[in-house]
Amino acid sequence: MGAAQEITASIEEQLSWQEELYKHFHRNPELGLKEHETSARICEELEDLGYEVQLIGGTGIVGVLRNGEGPVVLARADMDALPVTEDTGLEYSSEVPGAMHACGHDMHMATLLGAAKYLAGNKEAWSGTYIALFQPAEETAAGAKAMVEDGLVDKIPKPQVALAQHVMPAEAGMIGTTAGPILSAGDCLRITVHGRGAHGSMPHNSVDPVVLASSIVLKLQTVVSRETQPGHFAVLTVGSLTAGTTANIIPDRAQLLLNIRTYEPAIRQRVIDSIHRIVRGECQAAGSPKEPEFEFYDQFPLTSNDETANAKITAAFEAHFPEGQVYHADPATASEDFSTIPDAFGIPYAYWTVGCVDPQKYKDAVAAGTVASDIPANHSPFFAPVIHPTLQTATRTQVVAALAYLGTGAQE
Amino acid sequence: MGAAQEITASIEEQLSWQEELYKHFHRNPELGLKEHETSARICEELEDLGYEVQLIGGTGIVGVLRNGEGPVVLARADMDALPVTEDTGLEYSSEVPGAMHACGHDMHMATLLGAAKYLAGNKEAWSGTYIALFQPAEETAAGAKAMVEDGLVDKIPKPQVALAQHVMPAEAGMIGTTAGPILSAGDCLRITVHGRGAHGSMPHNSVDPVVLASSIVLKLQTVVSRETQPGHFAVLTVGSLTAGTTANIIPDRAQLLLNIRTYEPAIRQRVIDSIHRIVRGECQAAGSPKEPEFEFYDQFPLTSNDETANAKITAAFEAHFPEGQVYHADPATASEDFSTIPDAFGIPYAYWTVGCVDPQKYKDAVAAGTVASDIPANHSPFFAPVIHPTLQTATRTQVVAALAYLGTGAQE
Amino acid sequence: MGAAQEITASIEEQLSWQEELYKHFHRNPELGLKEHETSARICEELEDLGYEVQLIGGTGIVGVLRNGEGPVVLARADMDALPVTEDTGLEYSSEVPGAMHACGHDMHMATLLGAAKYLAGNKEAWSGTYIALFQPAEETAAGAKAMVEDGLVDKIPKPQVALAQHVMPAEAGMIGTTAGPILSAGDCLRITVHGRGAHGSMPHNSVDPVVLASSIVLKLQTVVSRETQPGHFAVLTVGSLTAGTTANIIPDRAQLLLNIRTYEPAIRQRVIDSIHRIVRGECQAAGSPKEPEFEFYDQFPLTSNDETANAKITAAFEAHFPEGQVYHADPATASEDFSTIPDAFGIPYAYWTVGCVDPQKYKDAVAAGTVASDIPANHSPFFAPVIHPTLQTATRTQVVAALAYLGTGAQE
Amino acid sequence: MGAAQEITASIEEQLSWQEELYKHFHRNPELGLKEHETSARICEELEDLGYEVQLIGGTGIVGVLRNGEGPVVLARADMDALPVTEDTGLEYSSEVPGAMHACGHDMHMATLLGAAKYLAGNKEAWSGTYIALFQPAEETAAGAKAMVEDGLVDKIPKPQVALAQHVMPAEAGMIGTTAGPILSAGDCLRITVHGRGAHGSMPHNSVDPVVLASSIVLKLQTVVSRETQPGHFAVLTVGSLTAGTTANIIPDRAQLLLNIRTYEPAIRQRVIDSIHRIVRGECQAAGSPKEPEFEFYDQFPLTSNDETANAKITAAFEAHFPEGQVYHADPATASEDFSTIPDAFGIPYAYWTVGCVDPQKYKDAVAAGTVASDIPANHSPFFAPVIHPTLQTATRTQVVAALAYLGTGAQE
Repeated sequence: MGAAQEITASIEEQLSWQEELYKHFHRNPELGLKEHETSARICEELEDLGYEVQLIGGTGIVGVLRNGEGPVVLARADMDALPVTEDTGLEYSSEVPGAMHACGHDMHMATLLGAAKYLAGNKEAWSGTYIALFQPAEETAAGAKAMVEDGLVDKIPKPQVALAQHVMPAEAGMIGTTAGPILSAGDCLRITVHGRGAHGSMPHNSVDPVVLASSIVLKLQTVVSRETQPGHFAVLTVGSLTAGTTANIIPDRAQLLLNIRTYEPAIRQRVIDSIHRIVRGECQAAGSPKEPEFEFYDQFPLTSNDETANAKITAAFEAHFPEGQVYHADPATASEDFSTIPDAFGIPYAYWTVGCVDPQKYKDAVAAGTVASDIPANHSPFFAPVIHPTLQTATRTQVVAALAYLGTGAQE
Repeated sequence: MGAAQEITASIEEQLSWQEELYKHFHRNPELGLKEHETSARICEELEDLGYEVQLIGGTGIVGVLRNGEGPVVLARADMDALPVTEDTGLEYSSEVPGAMHACGHDMHMATLLGAAKYLAGNKEAWSGTYIALFQPAEETAAGAKAMVEDGLVDKIPKPQVALAQHVMPAEAGMIGTTAGPILSAGDCLRITVHGRGAHGSMPHNSVDPVVLASSIVLKLQTVVSRETQPGHFAVLTVGSLTAGTTANIIPDRAQLLLNIRTYEPAIRQRVIDSIHRIVRGECQAAGSPKEPEFEFYDQFPLTSNDETANAKITAAFEAHFPEGQVYHADPATASEDFSTIPDAFGIPYAYWTVGCVDPQKYKDAVAAGTVASDIPANHSPFFAPVIHPTLQTATRTQVVAALAYLGTGAQE
Repeated sequence: MGAAQEITASIEEQLSWQEELYKHFHRNPELGLKEHETSARICEELEDLGYEVQLIGGTGIVGVLRNGEGPVVLARADMDALPVTEDTGLEYSSEVPGAMHACGHDMHMATLLGAAKYLAGNKEAWSGTYIALFQPAEETAAGAKAMVEDGLVDKIPKPQVALAQHVMPAEAGMIGTTAGPILSAGDCLRITVHGRGAHGSMPHNSVDPVVLASSIVLKLQTVVSRETQPGHFAVLTVGSLTAGTTANIIPDRAQLLLNIRTYEPAIRQRVIDSIHRIVRGECQAAGSPKEPEFEFYDQFPLTSNDETANAKITAAFEAHFPEGQVYHADPATASEDFSTIPDAFGIPYAYWTVGCVDPQKYKDAVAAGTVASDIPANHSPFFAPVIHPTLQTATRTQVVAALAYLGTGAQE
Repeated sequence: MGAAQEITASIEEQLSWQEELYKHFHRNPELGLKEHETSARICEELEDLGYEVQLIGGTGIVGVLRNGEGPVVLARADMDALPVTEDTGLEYSSEVPGAMHACGHDMHMATLLGAAKYLAGNKEAWSGTYIALFQPAEETAAGAKAMVEDGLVDKIPKPQVALAQHVMPAEAGMIGTTAGPILSAGDCLRITVHGRGAHGSMPHNSVDPVVLASSIVLKLQTVVSRETQPGHFAVLTVGSLTAGTTANIIPDRAQLLLNIRTYEPAIRQRVIDSIHRIVRGECQAAGSPKEPEFEFYDQFPLTSNDETANAKITAAFEAHFPEGQVYHADPATASEDFSTIPDAFGIPYAYWTVGCVDPQKYKDAVAAGTVASDIPANHSPFFAPVIHPTLQTATRTQVVAALAYLGTGAQE
């Protein structure tokens, strides 16, 4: 039996344990930084498997498994749920109103635990150190930061590489990889601009912030349309504009909430600089009596795969999985805080995606041109990964990627 | 003793009763359509004075005093308080948290009751029918309408003329009159425009209602700047714009609250037509998937004094008051629902203003150029009419205006 | 025979001479600052009438007639034609292609010469000094300034008052007067904003002046819609916007031509200040690499009649003309440079209008609601004052207004 | 001597003839569709070389060289100059004021003639048919169309493939190829929007086209910023906006000139559809009295290399040139009408670029970060390809690409 069959068979054996874990996490979602029960369960499992376990950054967990000489590989999963009320009708639906694993972090945990178990049970197949890291609060970009700020870098061995994956609404069994940007940098920005309030019948006594904010919104369109090199990726969305509460009072301020997404740091910086320049200029044009306020929040770093690391795991996936299952993924416009962890160590990383939709259902939707409407995406109250083969595939990717570094014979 | 001295003297005699009424009303403010105690007290007083009293339109009251042959004159006061927490520090301050007679309706009631008493007690000085009307809910444009809808026109004798006055932050003792527009028509309009929601990173799948609403706000500026004849009065304020709640979700709609003020019906109609045209055009330009919605509310009619009626009461005021107390008032940009009542009868009306600020304080503020900052205006939590001579003056104006029609010898 | 009949009769006698002058001027129009033949003819006529004549400011003429003790009165006419090709089909049409007296300055000259003749021939009816001033280049706001800069104030006796009139498309025989503003201040402003040129496919290398100028145009709408007190007069028109010449080159600048009209100096100043603020702010918002340039041109002063002077001539007109011919004129939105002359002397002035349309034709157009389309206005190639009674009326107004100051018995 | 050396040596021999041709064309530029002398010279040369020559589409030329059995290959050069006044100071500068070969078409002609000569002189090295096509008026997108409309497809043998190249400001000797889009589709669009003219002081009688056009410009920004999928290429430039000529007249129309560049037909269509929708919606919002007019002109098709053809010539270039000279070219935002010719035949094509800047000068500019300012680009009056090695390289690319299809042994 070759290595691939051996891995496949071993994972098949532990699958009912993983499925139970998956359903358990799904039934018991916990919001970011409050993953207390989730964290306790993971600790328990990791300790059962023989890992040295530490809590870092509140509910964050690191399990370390030392297995002789060799590289150190860190694999990461996220643990937090979303403030969404589940509407899937699944037998194992969330039992917590207003909270749901609608982004697949339950699958990430169950598969990383699965890989941790495989590696603990097959020490002959590898040597080195395996680190299974479970982080809190990915959705608010707070969890990776919390672990780093709590001393992660000093508390565990320095890895050579960091690995992570995400389930997404593609065909279950399919695995997407790419070098370079795979997820965008995401920045949220709250802008408050000031006018001068007045009765609605006295506009000449006011500086009208409704007009000011509207002018800013239109002018911000030029950041993408005129200031970004055509064909390069930049998104600037004003997701919220609020000013005033009644028709006949001119309010004294307006608030805009902006979301910025980019793949290139230079473009990100230019977008941010241009926003500042436009908002200040518009405030001056309007005669605003007070400087505008800029407050960044929910900032996600760029996720940009190391070329070598991506090549290594892609080759390993291609060797392990049947032809056609590994494909080149286009960068997605979503964001992640995973890269905060390798960046803290100054190490390369690879991040890949795993499909989670019933293959037949997905094919039918593609044929009908109804993917957008028929396949619930992450964050939807209807998001429901098909357990099989998602669980197997995503466990095998974690194992195969780790063994690409740690496996006997892998190490040059 | 001439007529003027006689009126002055009579009113002086009943002044302590009026003052007590004024302070009572001030201490016990009631919001629009909930003026139950206020209404009960007025009924009681009017009945004591010998008026036939009816409740019309909920808390509205009409008191009719018949005194032989002659014209029918209707005088109106309003009764509702504002949702303002008083901050004057007056001994007779509001005893109701969150409610205050900050617009002087208490003064209007006390002076109309004063005039009612004078006319009841001086029947030899006039003949005809005097109707004292107290309406609810002026502030929300609901009260006059409620009385008319409850059959006002059929329940009382048809008047020749309707009279009303308003206290304002001018020198107490001063009386302002004008022919034609004295208060603007005021219309509130709620506009909902529809986009197509999407994740903030997927603008191409959206129709962005934030951009759409912003474009509408800018384009609406042209209604005054380009479509209204220069020098003619029109105000179009977007007092509120709200769309979206988070940075990274493009919402599916935006809401604008507009306030429109005009003195000329043709201009009002053009403004309204232009708003519809602009909003519909902008929605089409944006590719909005659904027709915009327009909902008018809080609509105040134009208050435009009948030329003859105004000339009659102005002449009567000039004959009664010392020279220099009656002046030509410029139209104000505020609005009223008083005209709904004479319009229901199809009769002319006259509406005038009475100053209510301590004369010395007002003169000092004028000299210092600090009227805007030092003299609290209507609706301010610091609004505090000086009782004397406001009470006397405003009672005498009601009496003198009524006698201009009803007084012995007044009737040609 | 009373004074009025006497004036009327005298003017009737000189009418054929005036009519010949009018047709002569109409046939021989000369553009601003080039009124050489016109000027020569007027000098000749004034000298024939016994006036001391000086050329001031190039083609400008002042004729002085001293007639004993008494006030000094200056009456002014303008002389320049417009660059319009006449299309009236009149027998006495312009004989100069591309030039036409389309604004009635020919009538102004013929009637001022008529008044000059009357006063020269009726010295017993008045005493004092009469100054007939003919200025060049009214249309470009250059002529009055040219005369003042050439030393007008030092070259002639200082008048007590200055008088001027203008024919307009109202019923011939009608005379409009008003105190205060009668013509607006008019300012033209050329604004150049700078971008950075680039190939049309490289917007990120440009600062796009087309977008910048467009944003300025929209933002300038708020000067009237939000910054001007509702009901007060202010017009801000961007009459021209030009940028670029080809589709695929982003140009490096844009030019806007603005016209500003106001009646109140404070409003004019605020409009001008706001334009500067908005343009500078928008340039900053756009990242413009170079300060915008502002160049005022064709600036017309406010024409605002002195209250006393207007009252005096209005009373004189009402005494002289039949009832109903003198009416209160609303301010017009046109502009004039006449006031430059009295302002140079620091003296009051009165300016009035005289109708010039066939009365029946005007009444028919009013009845049909077709005044705007059927009555050619000043500057139209179809502008054609009806000679009678325009010529008589406008000559009599000049005589009557002068005699209000100079007439025997007029002087208190 | 291998094939590569043989080609290189042969071209070296004919180089002085080519250099003379190049300088001749450079000295004698002719604008599009007027390439009479240029066309005559090329005919002469082709006939001398033994080609069957036809004039097609006015000044267009096709020379056919039949050499036994085998594929038919068409290679194309363009002939027209630009309306630019040369400022290079070169000894062989343009002798025609206001015309210059500022885009390198002179080099294209000299190198295609060079390839034609090589193939005529080395018939033993290939078999099949070689077609050298010289088209007029590339700059205005009129020339390829003119040839097709004049029956090109029926007048010459149908080729298997079409080839073309362009010199560009990269290091001379470097050759760029790519599969798929290499040049954008380019569309110019003239839009006329209608308002209603009025005097500048009467905005209420107007529909202001300056405001309308400005609003359109701002709204058009959303086509790229909101309607185009982030990261996909679309440029929409308003290169010119013109409305009105004087400050105080509101004009009755405005004209916008747009340039659209895209790589994807679906995006191009959406951009065009959105422009129509936005312009129509804005006209409706403004109350425009007349439908806007849309007129497309100067439309350049997409240049998108056939994958197989590109692979074939790229492999041939890599085999022929030293390592490192052939690189993957990013798509450029410029446009071409070359593809009109293969599209007319329904055949694949390959288009590549050849650098033309002195290598040392280019390297220095890169090092100094001054490429944009120091290296004159196509269309600049300073554009001056270095003759060597540009001429050799670009002749060799034409020969090598042709032999990839025609060469002995090339044909499977």
